[in-house]
Amino acid sequence: MNIDGQAWRTIGLEPDGRSVWVIDQTQLPHRFGTRSLSSCEQAAAAISTMVVRGAPLIGVTGAYGLMLALQNDASDAALAAAFDQLNATRPTAVNLRWALERVRDRVLALPPAKRAVAAREEAGLIADEDVAMCSAIGDHGLEIIQRLAAARPEVRKNKPFQVLTHCNAGWLATVDWGTALAPIYKARRAGLDLHVWVDETRPRNQGASLTAYELGREGVPHTVIVDNAGGHLMQNGEVDAVIVGTDRTTRRGDVCNKIGTYLKALAAYDNAVPFYVALPASTIDWSLDDGVAEIPIEARSPQEVTAIQGRLLDGPAAGTLAQVQLTPNGSDGFNPAFDVTPARLVTALITDRGVADASEEGLKSLYGCG
Amino acid sequence: MNIDGQAWRTIGLEPDGRSVWVIDQTQLPHRFGTRSLSSCEQAAAAISTMVVRGAPLIGVTGAYGLMLALQNDASDAALAAAFDQLNATRPTAVNLRWALERVRDRVLALPPAKRAVAAREEAGLIADEDVAMCSAIGDHGLEIIQRLAAARPEVRKNKPFQVLTHCNAGWLATVDWGTALAPIYKARRAGLDLHVWVDETRPRNQGASLTAYELGREGVPHTVIVDNAGGHLMQNGEVDAVIVGTDRTTRRGDVCNKIGTYLKALAAYDNAVPFYVALPASTIDWSLDDGVAEIPIEARSPQEVTAIQGRLLDGPAAGTLAQVQLTPNGSDGFNPAFDVTPARLVTALITDRGVADASEEGLKSLYGCG
Repeated sequence: MNIDGQAWRTIGLEPDGRSVWVIDQTQLPHRFGTRSLSSCEQAAAAISTMVVRGAPLIGVTGAYGLMLALQNDASDAALAAAFDQLNATRPTAVNLRWALERVRDRVLALPPAKRAVAAREEAGLIADEDVAMCSAIGDHGLEIIQRLAAARPEVRKNKPFQVLTHCNAGWLATVDWGTALAPIYKARRAGLDLHVWVDETRPRNQGASLTAYELGREGVPHTVIVDNAGGHLMQNGEVDAVIVGTDRTTRRGDVCNKIGTYLKALAAYDNAVPFYVALPASTIDWSLDDGVAEIPIEARSPQEVTAIQGRLLDGPAAGTLAQVQLTPNGSDGFNPAFDVTPARLVTALITDRGVADASEEGLKSLYGCG
Repeated sequence: MNIDGQAWRTIGLEPDGRSVWVIDQTQLPHRFGTRSLSSCEQAAAAISTMVVRGAPLIGVTGAYGLMLALQNDASDAALAAAFDQLNATRPTAVNLRWALERVRDRVLALPPAKRAVAAREEAGLIADEDVAMCSAIGDHGLEIIQRLAAARPEVRKNKPFQVLTHCNAGWLATVDWGTALAPIYKARRAGLDLHVWVDETRPRNQGASLTAYELGREGVPHTVIVDNAGGHLMQNGEVDAVIVGTDRTTRRGDVCNKIGTYLKALAAYDNAVPFYVALPASTIDWSLDDGVAEIPIEARSPQEVTAIQGRLLDGPAAGTLAQVQLTPNGSDGFNPAFDVTPARLVTALITDRGVADASEEGLKSLYGCG
């Protein structure tokens, strides 16, 4: 998608073909820049420190991380070590394991000398497929938005179609287009009048920093709200649909996404606002039934709760990035990064293959038996 | 309650008997200090800029604001102007109007020369009654906590009793004791093993800054969480009860409280976690039935969403308070300050007169016909 009129992806090969550039998402929205990754360690650190984040992008970064490892040492042992190192960076998203397995399975049968080149090719394929899947999600989601917009009562047809989204499931979370935001970009390009409520998404504020940034660069009208506000907006008829992404989806349609998604799903259900989850096939974990009981939830540093980064508004250092502490000394924090929204609260899943019920039958109707 | 072992209230008369001191809550938790208010204008500004906040404390500050006005000009016209100025500072809490009317009605029948003294006396009575009501709320809430703690399954009896609270309805929101936190302080003093999950409560972060501060000073174990996390904790059996305050309660038991309360009520209901609202009689608005339709919701500055204050962690100015911007330039915010939790989601109301169903029958059983 566009930044200042120039089309970008989030990740790609450097001109040397041996290292990888990524957009540094820890500096957004205040500074835009890229970082070069030239080793598996650097790729793993980029994932764990959230230089890159978003389930699909984590998967692609992991795939390239294996390429970087194999360029250095293409032995079976090095491959296994790199796999484990990358796979341990973030425990909740299933795309990461999926992408790592795909590259590993591709190269394991090859002699070591051919492995790095094959990994590069496979990672590139995964990236290109991700773009195509996200574009398809956008097309299927666009149909839903157009249908809902047309079905609104007359009194609301003169207002923009209002979508609420949580966290960042936009192009910055993928390679391009995004998952939850792909339908919004497609609708915008189709000329639909829409407005997006952006949950700021504490503690990492991916909504306030990343979703607001990418919507702004693409010229999509939007307003940032605190995570507490969505229920009130839904109660008052200010939300026509909720669309979010997912880091892992069980075979029965339970959705594990950024912490707080479950609360928005409850509010949507209570107010008869349709609640959609957008996902590529790679986030489905066919091995799991019950999301609440079975999906491991990453607990991140309490410092992400007790402090926050922003751009200084005043003083001699105004304009620079700074960390401020929000809590009293001696008060600790707890920081679960994801929660699980039960399938019963999900109106439908918007996938790369079409729209399905959030159920085993729904998913199987699109993907066979997994 | 205690700060460093010394007992404090949030507001009182200065030694001269003509001006009023308040704890400056805009500097907490990083700096503790008081401010002196010597005019009605200063009292109004203290309320609107949230130097003081919390429905009961706003009411007491408003009452003292009328005293300050009458000391300067005790005419009917000046009284009416001061009433309007103070009443306009915050539109949602009903205590403010209630306290202002009480002082006005007391002094109107008096000759101007006696009005300021009578206002001082009435404001002092309101403050003392608030302390007594909050203490009574604490006693009634303590019984609930003791009953719930005793009824827990054996497997959870060895863990602390876990309460989740939203915003600050502690002693800093009242004159002393607090509403939602009064039962917690009483339980702590009764020797109960408990732990409080503190919602940070964006955008003003009254949880992270005020609730964490006062619990810490009183030695109550607590952990700060982002507003997104409560649903996940309830899904996983980590919350035994939710207790919150209210800024206005309708005759049918709908509860208007800090934005985001409704989302926690939905999660509590979905997970069969009891959800209590603690309130003094002064927050009941007998003139309203339907909270969602009838209670005016204050929209505050978008800057409270797009920026936040904290204590700088690094750099030459480390330790000082600073504002940082969280959003990209060009992205606006929307900032509704309260939401309404329908009575159907409220397990019970904990009042100064006892515990009641969140219904017209429940409230009338305690307070007659209003």
